[in-house]
Amino acid sequence: MERSPLAPAAFPALPDIEGVTLRIAQARYKEWDRCDLTYAELAEGTAVAGVTTKNLCCSSEVELCREGIKGGRARALIVNAGNSNAFTGYRGREAVEQIMGQVAGHLGCAPSEVFVSSTGVIGVPLPKDKARAGVEAALAAAPCSWEDAARTIGTTDTFPKGATASAMIGDKKVSLSGIIKGSGMIAPDMATMLGYIFTDAAIEPAILQEMLNEANAESYSCITVDGDTSTSDTVLVFATGKAGNAPLVNRDSPGADAFQAALTDICTQLAHLVVKDGEGAQKFIEIRVTGAVSDVSARRIGLSIANSPLVKTAIAGEDANWGRVVMAVGKAGEPADRDRLSISFGTTQVAANGYPVEGYDEAPVAAHLKGQDITIGVDIGLGDGRASVWTCDLTHGYISINADYRS
Amino acid sequence: MERSPLAPAAFPALPDIEGVTLRIAQARYKEWDRCDLTYAELAEGTAVAGVTTKNLCCSSEVELCREGIKGGRARALIVNAGNSNAFTGYRGREAVEQIMGQVAGHLGCAPSEVFVSSTGVIGVPLPKDKARAGVEAALAAAPCSWEDAARTIGTTDTFPKGATASAMIGDKKVSLSGIIKGSGMIAPDMATMLGYIFTDAAIEPAILQEMLNEANAESYSCITVDGDTSTSDTVLVFATGKAGNAPLVNRDSPGADAFQAALTDICTQLAHLVVKDGEGAQKFIEIRVTGAVSDVSARRIGLSIANSPLVKTAIAGEDANWGRVVMAVGKAGEPADRDRLSISFGTTQVAANGYPVEGYDEAPVAAHLKGQDITIGVDIGLGDGRASVWTCDLTHGYISINADYRS
Repeated sequence: MERSPLAPAAFPALPDIEGVTLRIAQARYKEWDRCDLTYAELAEGTAVAGVTTKNLCCSSEVELCREGIKGGRARALIVNAGNSNAFTGYRGREAVEQIMGQVAGHLGCAPSEVFVSSTGVIGVPLPKDKARAGVEAALAAAPCSWEDAARTIGTTDTFPKGATASAMIGDKKVSLSGIIKGSGMIAPDMATMLGYIFTDAAIEPAILQEMLNEANAESYSCITVDGDTSTSDTVLVFATGKAGNAPLVNRDSPGADAFQAALTDICTQLAHLVVKDGEGAQKFIEIRVTGAVSDVSARRIGLSIANSPLVKTAIAGEDANWGRVVMAVGKAGEPADRDRLSISFGTTQVAANGYPVEGYDEAPVAAHLKGQDITIGVDIGLGDGRASVWTCDLTHGYISINADYRS
Repeated sequence: MERSPLAPAAFPALPDIEGVTLRIAQARYKEWDRCDLTYAELAEGTAVAGVTTKNLCCSSEVELCREGIKGGRARALIVNAGNSNAFTGYRGREAVEQIMGQVAGHLGCAPSEVFVSSTGVIGVPLPKDKARAGVEAALAAAPCSWEDAARTIGTTDTFPKGATASAMIGDKKVSLSGIIKGSGMIAPDMATMLGYIFTDAAIEPAILQEMLNEANAESYSCITVDGDTSTSDTVLVFATGKAGNAPLVNRDSPGADAFQAALTDICTQLAHLVVKDGEGAQKFIEIRVTGAVSDVSARRIGLSIANSPLVKTAIAGEDANWGRVVMAVGKAGEPADRDRLSISFGTTQVAANGYPVEGYDEAPVAAHLKGQDITIGVDIGLGDGRASVWTCDLTHGYISINADYRS
């Protein structure tokens, strides 16, 4: 698959996180000559938090992750690429439990401290023999780079994705490094969005979870490629506590706000990278909704626009078709008044108070739409609610990837 | 635009409806040499019922239709093609009121008995001068055929759409003839689904409305092309009462069930025709959901599948990708249990009880998917709720129609 035109020039330089060691191996879940099993070894005492798919038909990996998150502590992460192990019943669950037991035996920890994700084809139980050999090879492998790990968790991704952020907690600098995979909510073989963030900050699991929920609401929950929600979506944050900062125990701990900002920052960066690898994406679209009755309402309206095939095809066609934006606002089911609605493309207002702007000059809008980064502004005119959501355009590339090739 | 490959061989023979006279004229709402204004003159005492878009940013036509429906009586219908008059503020409303007044003056009826629909480009007020001249020409035109009227209400439709049904009420046969336009929930220039059904049955407006609501729930509300809900969607039923049957006044009136069945039948036929003219459609897809906790839940699950770009592209690619169906069930937000789910394509079960069927033979499924009429069966395994929904596949044609041409 050709590299997305929206990909960054290079993989960014991510700082090492003390207490995190990455290793990769070949489990050969598919007939391919690449690493497809990633192992992150985490220091004792590492806190964990996570958000997972709301899809009711989720995989055993997701179910077991949710259970593990309740414990609040993690010692290891295993990510399998090439087989999502979804819709595989008890056989699939057994394979995950085998991996958890194998790694726990190696580290001398509880199986519930081992987190497993899988991504790839659906309906085929993860082969236990390949998993066992792959894990064994990973446990013994030499440490690898962030970029190697980012590449190894990927499936249909056209580029490896990573981001970093940092924050001061008191006089201690804490670092966050994260990797993510995803290229559409669901890629051709049920590939999915999986994201992992590692930090050396000392932080209690409960507050880490609260902060991840907040970051998620403004990042992963604000992106869409095709509106399809995967059965395996998972984002985990691991905090090793090695930075030596005074532990964050609640919202009032000094540095909590700075850490929240850094966490939201890295989540947003990673979320944007997924959109930029959206199947067939040629343009990155930011939809800024203001004036809604609440932030939640603004986000719903934004996602209604971002999920509209007609809006997405209009952007692909570089067409300032604001009528389709009106339609998408109206179908969101959120409070909206046609006669208060204002719409802009880039910095140019095209409609205000329910009517096309007098003497509207299409030239700057046409120029904006020819670019790769598109901004659509929508003011609902009813309140102070606001949200930004991000998506990509809907192109022939999406159809080719999803219809022209058999799975 | 090329005729849809799913179009019927010919426009059907529709019976005349006593008390209904159709006329068409050229208002030239666009620079085209075709009729674009349709006028249906209705006998005194005609009952009316209607369902309209739930889109909150609806057109003035829709607002005024809703008001007219409350009165229960109709004398005329005017349909403008080429300009939807949506998002045009008070100027748009004035144009509709002008048409209502003009026709009411001609017929000597109340303006509220004149129903107006418009379809086409958005954001441009319907030009009053063209509307006045067009209506004047239509009022004086010779009566035309159902096919002419069906063609005249169309915009991006690739074929004219009509259907008929009949019922016995006591010893009187009543007839229903209907026409519809639509080609996607929204076509390139905000074209929309507009449907009109005419019957000679004698029936009170209140029960006609109740029956239309029931028919709508099983027909128009069960189709989707792209999940985008237009700002102008309208379906109206006019009953002239000329058949001489004992008037239907409630559900217990003799023949009420037969009329309900005929109404649901014609609505379903018309709804299917819209899907068969779906933008870029190559395949007609029926999704039969059974075993849901309720009929409403079944319909939501069905629409989640029918609106999934990944399911629709898989069908376009003739790919029995049942994993995408599982995903779409899970994201519907309705009660579902991964391990009770069964899925079939055509008559072949591919997954049962949350696991691929043992010894599944792909050959009959592959053969089914090569056809034009595709059936996906999903059993949720939880209750007795059932629903059928209809959609088309998502193809390069959809992208070409919506992205490659500028509006």
